[in-house]
Amino acid sequence: MPKVDLEAIAQSNATGYPPHLADIVQERWYRRLSPALGLTDFGASHVVLKPGAWSAQRHWHENEDELLVILSGQAVLVDDSGRTLLEPGDIAAFPKNDGNAHCVINEGDADCVFLVVGQSVNGPCHYPDVDMHENGAGDKCRKDGSAF
Amino acid sequence: MPKVDLEAIAQSNATGYPPHLADIVQERWYRRLSPALGLTDFGASHVVLKPGAWSAQRHWHENEDELLVILSGQAVLVDDSGRTLLEPGDIAAFPKNDGNAHCVINEGDADCVFLVVGQSVNGPCHYPDVDMHENGAGDKCRKDGSAF
Repeated sequence: MPKVDLEAIAQSNATGYPPHLADIVQERWYRRLSPALGLTDFGASHVVLKPGAWSAQRHWHENEDELLVILSGQAVLVDDSGRTLLEPGDIAAFPKNDGNAHCVINEGDADCVFLVVGQSVNGPCHYPDVDMHENGAGDKCRKDGSAF
Repeated sequence: MPKVDLEAIAQSNATGYPPHLADIVQERWYRRLSPALGLTDFGASHVVLKPGAWSAQRHWHENEDELLVILSGQAVLVDDSGRTLLEPGDIAAFPKNDGNAHCVINEGDADCVFLVVGQSVNGPCHYPDVDMHENGAGDKCRKDGSAF
């Protein structure tokens, strides 16, 4: 039956960030929908941001379009243009390679739930605010290429 | 700014269905987000189903994964397994080529708003309940291949 039973899909707060950059995503709880549901054309995740949690370090992708829709709660979108409140039903789009680093932060008292769609494949990812880079092969390193 | 201004994106109720199959989608008002927002990895649409409207004739795609999330209102998902109520935050997934024809119908008194993600490319689409077929090149015809 196509209605998704979210409870049946494992939820994780795992991150590839090094410990000193990972505090902000410790309460980002996500479910990877596409592998669980047999979808291969795109990657979709259901994400619960607990109060105080960030979706990610502020970043932009060279090779991956992203689309996000808020399902419940609120989050502040932070990007090069400033801060923008997102509420249920609000959509944000991040075209690949636009150089506009972004993240969303739950600054409220309730959970923020959103759905995010991207590609299943990885690619280089840039983090302007912190000394981290993702080369697209899955491993994160310092901007000079050295390992954490 | 990545927050999407929906009002700035054209809304349409256009359909490629022949007139005798199109009544049910006349009050399906959609915005094609991906071309408006510069996204090319996947196709995303914001859809308002007025009371009584269907998302489509019941169908399944050979080459296109679909994912839908309800943003407000309610809809009944109809597929080979029966009828399932969808409410805000509910997600439904339709893997390509699974042969499970589906649609959602707004049987309520309020608008139903959803976001749906698929591919930007077309492909064959099957409609088990009506004499229509989509060969993937954009033109719909009868099941015997004849034109409407």
